[in-house]
Amino acid sequence: MSLVVGLDIGGTKTAAGLVDPSGELLETATRPTPGAEGREAILATAAGLVRSLLREGVTAVGVGSAGVIDPVRGVVVSATSALAGWAGTDLRGELSRGLGLPVAVDNDVHAHALGELWRGAAAGHSDVLLVAVGTGVGASLVLGGRVRHGAHAVAGHAGHVPVAAAAGLPCPCGGQGHVEAVASGPALLGAYRRRAGTETPGGLAEVARLAAAGDPVAAEVLATGATALGQAIGGLMNVLDPEIVIVGGGVAGCGEPWWGPLRAAVAAETLPALRDVPVRPAALSATAALLGAARLALTTDFGGPGPE
Amino acid sequence: MSLVVGLDIGGTKTAAGLVDPSGELLETATRPTPGAEGREAILATAAGLVRSLLREGVTAVGVGSAGVIDPVRGVVVSATSALAGWAGTDLRGELSRGLGLPVAVDNDVHAHALGELWRGAAAGHSDVLLVAVGTGVGASLVLGGRVRHGAHAVAGHAGHVPVAAAAGLPCPCGGQGHVEAVASGPALLGAYRRRAGTETPGGLAEVARLAAAGDPVAAEVLATGATALGQAIGGLMNVLDPEIVIVGGGVAGCGEPWWGPLRAAVAAETLPALRDVPVRPAALSATAALLGAARLALTTDFGGPGPE
Repeated sequence: MSLVVGLDIGGTKTAAGLVDPSGELLETATRPTPGAEGREAILATAAGLVRSLLREGVTAVGVGSAGVIDPVRGVVVSATSALAGWAGTDLRGELSRGLGLPVAVDNDVHAHALGELWRGAAAGHSDVLLVAVGTGVGASLVLGGRVRHGAHAVAGHAGHVPVAAAAGLPCPCGGQGHVEAVASGPALLGAYRRRAGTETPGGLAEVARLAAAGDPVAAEVLATGATALGQAIGGLMNVLDPEIVIVGGGVAGCGEPWWGPLRAAVAAETLPALRDVPVRPAALSATAALLGAARLALTTDFGGPGPE
Repeated sequence: MSLVVGLDIGGTKTAAGLVDPSGELLETATRPTPGAEGREAILATAAGLVRSLLREGVTAVGVGSAGVIDPVRGVVVSATSALAGWAGTDLRGELSRGLGLPVAVDNDVHAHALGELWRGAAAGHSDVLLVAVGTGVGASLVLGGRVRHGAHAVAGHAGHVPVAAAAGLPCPCGGQGHVEAVASGPALLGAYRRRAGTETPGGLAEVARLAAAGDPVAAEVLATGATALGQAIGGLMNVLDPEIVIVGGGVAGCGEPWWGPLRAAVAAETLPALRDVPVRPAALSATAALLGAARLALTTDFGGPGPE
C-alpha cells in the first residue's frame, strides 16, 4: 500500500503524520518549530519528523507551511517574523533532496482546506470557502476541487477585506480597516482588555468561558468580532457563491457566544439565494493541515519516480 | 465561414450583433427592451433582432441577459422589476426553438467580461475581476479563462460586500452596508442632490463635468463613491489575486475625479504583492456584452448539429 507523510509547519509547532490513501492518520509526531533559529533549523526539524515516520511504502511527502507559498516553484514567497529567514526558502527542493522523496508544498491554510474537503466538514463538496481565525484571519478558496492560488500566490487573504467596525484601525498588513484588525484572536483579547480594564490570564478561552457564563463585556467583545467577520464572510459569499463555508482556527472554538453572532451576520449580509448555504465549524482541528498536506502528496503528479 | 449572433438583453435596450470567429462585429441592430410588456414581448424583440441579422453561415446564438442566469439549465433565475415576468423564463429553450439554432445563455455582466477578455482591456489574460458600475454594482470573475458562476449562479455580486462608508445604509438587495448603496450611479446622484441641495438636470455626466471643472461638492461626491468602491475591489483582490482588474459601466465614464480616488483606494487596500496589478477601464463600452455573448456561442459545445 502506498503511504505518504503529511507535514504541517506552523509558527509554533511542526507536526507530521503518516497517512494511508483513504485518509487514515496512522501515526503522528510533533515538535516545537525552532522559528527563531532560522531556516536550517526549521528544515532540520521538519525533515527529522518525517524521517521518524518513514517506513517501507512511503512514496511522497506533502507540506503545508505558514507563509505565502508558491506551489508551482515550491518556494516560500514571504513569511511572518515568527519564522526567521523562512522567506525565500526552496522548501520543496531542500526537503526533496534531504529526504530522497518527491515533495509537494502549499500554504498551511490551503492544506487545512484540502483536509476538511477530504475527511472533514466539507467532505463531498468541491466548492468551499474555508476561513481560519486565530492569530490572523486567513482563508482558502477551493473551486472545483482545486485550491485557488491566484496570480501571485496570495489568494485567500480574507483577513484583508474592509468592514465598517475596522474603519481607521491599523491592520498587521500595513493597511487599515481590515477585518483582521477586529476579528483575530489578538484583536479580541485587546478589545476585552480595553473594555474590562483587565488582562485575562486564561486568554481567549477565558473570555469564551466568561461570555458563556453571562458576562456582558466578554459576550459583547466576542459578538463584535464575530459580527465583523460574518459581514466579511457574507460579502465574500455574495461574490464567490460557494457550496459551503467552513470556519476554523482557535477563535472558532469560542462557542455559541461567537458562533451565534457570526451566523446572524452572515444571514443579514448574504443575498436571498444564499441563505441556505451551510456555515459550519471545521471538523478536524489540529490534524486538518496534516491530512490536507498528505492529500496534496497523494494527488500531485510528480512526473516520474524518485525525487526531483 | 462560421458566424454567430451575439445578443445583449438589458433593462432598457436589446442589442444584437453579427460576429465572425475573430471577433469582428460585422453588423448590429438595437431596439428598446419592452421590459414592462413582459416575457413574450421581450423574447419577440430579441428574436426579431437576431432574425434581422441572420444569413447563411450563422451557426449559433449567444445571449447575455440582465438578471441571474443559470447557464447550465438555460433559464432566468431572477431579474429586476424592469423586466416584467423575466424570472423563470426558459431563455435558451424559447430562443432556440423560435430561431432553429443552438443558443448559449449567460448573465450580461459575465458576457461583458468575456468580451473584454476576448477583444478588450483584458485581452491576453485568463484571470480577471471585471466590475461594472452603473444602476447597480456587479462583477464577473473569470478564472482560468472560465466565468465563475458559483453554486447558485449568483457569483459576482460584488455590489453586495461591506464597506465602512455604507454602514447602516439600505441596499437595493434588502440588506444594508453594501458598497452598491454608496457607489452606484443612483447613489452618487442622491449624494450630490443632498450635498448640493439641487438636482442635476444632466445627471451623472453633469456631476462629472462639474467635478472636472473644480466644483468641490461634485468632486467630493465622486471621490467618496470611488473610494468606497476601490476599498471593496481591493479587498476582493486580496482574496482572489486576479491578474488584472477591469472596471466598466456608466459610472466609470466619470473621468479622473472618479478614477483617481478609485486607484488610490485600491492601492491602500491591497497587500504589497498586489500593488502592480493593473486596474484598467473597460475598453469595449456598449459592444462588450455583445462580443462576449458571441464568444460564448463560439466556444460552447452544443453537442451536435441543430437546435436542442
